Amino acid sequence: MTALWQRQPVGIVGLGLIGGSLGLDLIARGAEVRALVHREATAVRARERRLATTVSTDPAVLAGCGLVVLALPLDQLLDPSPQLLAALPPDAVITDVGSVKGPVLEVWQARLGLTAGRFVASHPMAGTAHAGVEAGEVDLFRGRPWVATPGVCTDPGALEAVRQLAEALGAHWISCDAADHDQAVALISHLPVLVSAALLQAADHGAEQAGGALPRLVRALASSGFADTTRVGGGNPELGLWMARWNRQALLEGLRAYRQALMQLEQQVEGQDWPALQRSLADCQRLRPEFL
Amino acid sequence: MTALWQRQPVGIVGLGLIGGSLGLDLIARGAEVRALVHREATAVRARERRLATTVSTDPAVLAGCGLVVLALPLDQLLDPSPQLLAALPPDAVITDVGSVKGPVLEVWQARLGLTAGRFVASHPMAGTAHAGVEAGEVDLFRGRPWVATPGVCTDPGALEAVRQLAEALGAHWISCDAADHDQAVALISHLPVLVSAALLQAADHGAEQAGGALPRLVRALASSGFADTTRVGGGNPELGLWMARWNRQALLEGLRAYRQALMQLEQQVEGQDWPALQRSLADCQRLRPEFL
Repeated sequence: MTALWQRQPVGIVGLGLIGGSLGLDLIARGAEVRALVHREATAVRARERRLATTVSTDPAVLAGCGLVVLALPLDQLLDPSPQLLAALPPDAVITDVGSVKGPVLEVWQARLGLTAGRFVASHPMAGTAHAGVEAGEVDLFRGRPWVATPGVCTDPGALEAVRQLAEALGAHWISCDAADHDQAVALISHLPVLVSAALLQAADHGAEQAGGALPRLVRALASSGFADTTRVGGGNPELGLWMARWNRQALLEGLRAYRQALMQLEQQVEGQDWPALQRSLADCQRLRPEFL
Repeated sequence: MTALWQRQPVGIVGLGLIGGSLGLDLIARGAEVRALVHREATAVRARERRLATTVSTDPAVLAGCGLVVLALPLDQLLDPSPQLLAALPPDAVITDVGSVKGPVLEVWQARLGLTAGRFVASHPMAGTAHAGVEAGEVDLFRGRPWVATPGVCTDPGALEAVRQLAEALGAHWISCDAADHDQAVALISHLPVLVSAALLQAADHGAEQAGGALPRLVRALASSGFADTTRVGGGNPELGLWMARWNRQALLEGLRAYRQALMQLEQQVEGQDWPALQRSLADCQRLRPEFL
């Protein structure tokens, strides 16, 4: 039997990196894609880029869609407009792409009430350095995890429809508990943002305190190691803010684990316990490939 | 007038990433390169790769060199063998490639005694993920900083000879105080190793403490952001150990600046001071391009 995305038009709300990439991939696979965007200028550019079959700023464009993907930033996902809610076809399967799942599941199950079962909280984990209507690219999801976090009332048919969509785009489907997802991304995605941001500040403040040639020298000598370690900390401040705000408890737990790990390394340096430091660093060298 | 490296043979002690790359670049520029390595198997492979004109395990190979580059790991640089010291031509300019300069300058000025002026402490800041006799590559130094840290007794002619070598290979020459160099690399090179290593440990321990699906989930979901932020922390443990050991005081100061920066971010999350967190992250976004 054909998948839902093949039988009925797919709606996409928002045509940024994720929404635009979804549109390109779905059109390439013969789907009809109806996209809702906020601004007319975005609609014009999205039509030029052929990110969807139809692009409109009128929520009515979603009528007739069997599956709607909410490809919105986290703050908009957590505070959906009444116009958007009213425009969602009453039988459509709804999914999202938010990077924190507990709060999204809670808000949308409450908003959809009796039909909450058709909401599938999901998180395609694909990113680039780009954002906006120019960012969407073909094959963004291939080989990347697409995590779904069904709740107790999630309809198995709705979950299956989203799985078929994700796998058609080459993503690696993972289904887990929303709280587990949020704890995991706190450790491997949200914690790195703060760890990396603090390094930028320490290099800046440390050099400023030392004075003299140091502020100029740290800037002249920083190389690929510093560039890599500070990449996510020097990224979009709003993304970092949303992660911290909506995944606060898990992030604070991650920070506690981090502080403990760093303190142990610092004590090894302070106490000149070189065999222990070498063991710690050798552990890290062994650990990293498990994550990649 | 031609440079010293053009007039007399250049000696290289050690043919790892830095020594091998130096050899390849110098031979490409018509220099005669005489290399000393520790093991016969390395000599055989180095000859096959044409990393030097002559490769030998006999220190006598350095006789007649006008300029000798000590391309050794930090631990060997700080504890040079009597055989190596005896083999250095008495009039040759000597330079090194160590990543910490204060201790190197101190050891070598003491060892060379009355002829300490011919020792130029230097640090070509070029790295790849590779090491050993296979690692050397053409043009490794092009566009990269090559820092020299002359002491009070360093001979200006010796300094100039090393500058000519560095600039001939396309490096960007920077001369500064050894203590300033060591403080700068503590902040932008050695601190990132510990910051990054602690993140690997926190992700591992945090997931283990949470239990259940978490240890598997963090490994399945870690993506490019985690990969970049943990790259230097998952590297060669010996390099990290040497940096900490020989640049301990500056690293501990860097760790203090880091702890303070991280604590402030944590307090903003803990206290839900979202405007302050957004300002901090926006500062980081503005700071990063200054370093790259």
